[in-house]
Amino acid sequence: MNFFDVINTRRSIRRFTDSIVPDEVIQNALDAATKAPNSSNLQPWEFYWFKFSQKKAELAEACLFQGTARTANHLIVAVSRTDTWQRNRDILVQQMQATEPLSKDLRTYYYKIIPSLYRQDPFGLFALSRFLIFNIIGLFKPIVRRPVSKNDLFEIVTKTTALACQNFMLAITAQGYGSCPMEGFDEKRVKKILKLNSDSRIVMVIGVGDPASGGIFGPQFRVDPNLVIHKL
Amino acid sequence: MNFFDVINTRRSIRRFTDSIVPDEVIQNALDAATKAPNSSNLQPWEFYWFKFSQKKAELAEACLFQGTARTANHLIVAVSRTDTWQRNRDILVQQMQATEPLSKDLRTYYYKIIPSLYRQDPFGLFALSRFLIFNIIGLFKPIVRRPVSKNDLFEIVTKTTALACQNFMLAITAQGYGSCPMEGFDEKRVKKILKLNSDSRIVMVIGVGDPASGGIFGPQFRVDPNLVIHKL
Repeated sequence: MNFFDVINTRRSIRRFTDSIVPDEVIQNALDAATKAPNSSNLQPWEFYWFKFSQKKAELAEACLFQGTARTANHLIVAVSRTDTWQRNRDILVQQMQATEPLSKDLRTYYYKIIPSLYRQDPFGLFALSRFLIFNIIGLFKPIVRRPVSKNDLFEIVTKTTALACQNFMLAITAQGYGSCPMEGFDEKRVKKILKLNSDSRIVMVIGVGDPASGGIFGPQFRVDPNLVIHKL
Repeated sequence: MNFFDVINTRRSIRRFTDSIVPDEVIQNALDAATKAPNSSNLQPWEFYWFKFSQKKAELAEACLFQGTARTANHLIVAVSRTDTWQRNRDILVQQMQATEPLSKDLRTYYYKIIPSLYRQDPFGLFALSRFLIFNIIGLFKPIVRRPVSKNDLFEIVTKTTALACQNFMLAITAQGYGSCPMEGFDEKRVKKILKLNSDSRIVMVIGVGDPASGGIFGPQFRVDPNLVIHKL
């Protein structure tokens, strides 16, 4: 399917038919998801794919039984994590070193700078130090000022995971099926179903299926582009 | 361009040639951006498009003069806002009402539920009330537990804006040009250049141009999909 046709036809689908969406469709879309650009290539995402299990019904309940969740053929929970960066960094460095030795700059970046930005302690002392250092240096020259707190870190990993989710949803449309991103879920219950710790957040739950007639709410409404696009 | 070719060829471009990217390319990509799904269709995003102005040099400085920022033909700052929901809601409702009367459910959603979730006060009393209400009701049945705080609200608008950014970047690739999302910028300085208030955050700065040879760092490294994709 042509790229702009995908962009222009993707809509949020609120109700699906009973038709089966082949696993391959989901696999292709998950593959597209992980090809998204992401912060320092640390890939802080996870995708939980619910198909026919009892757990899918539990998940639909945690999504308040809304139409998308109730009728979706597959449900995918996109999760962002602040605790996988060390593991992923080590894997990445190994992959990079398989082709050529790691440059000094990259070594400094991944083993000095990233840990100094990502590490958190229960008393917030790392966060306080970062805040002070960034804001003092920032008086004199441009400097990256965040992440300071764990909330900042969640902002980064969640933002990155959203990029992957968009690839996923477009890839579903490109294969002739429909999707809908949901934010209306009980995060505590979803995390309990997935046995997730406090270093993770539910970014969105995506329903996938064959669009039912009436599954789209109506025309796509957007505000005047001049309100949100500013040319300088 | 075929959809999966776009997904598979998009890479972060760190250096661009001097070639001019026509305005139309950016306009098409911004149009694709605003077609992304977004939270309650409140479109809490803004895109600041820097071309040839003096301000573009200032912005590149605030992006620490990294290769992408220095050599990009266009720079786009994607901003998320927690203070445009009322304006956008009113516009949307007007658009919806032009085709048919607003349903009772939608009226309740946009004029009761959304304000009760989005409103913040300086003392955090709204946030505290929401926290208590959600967690008490949540003992008995599934309930959406956030946004509670302003940070939660920023999570929602930033996540939504990231979806739009991914559409933008893919649309650039689809038209034969390259992009790179940057998080390495001085947010305080960027906000000063754009005269943005504390209800806004810089989601990312995206450089666009014609990829220079050597503008891609190397092969695309990804961790084993089995580490991040879990089938249930």
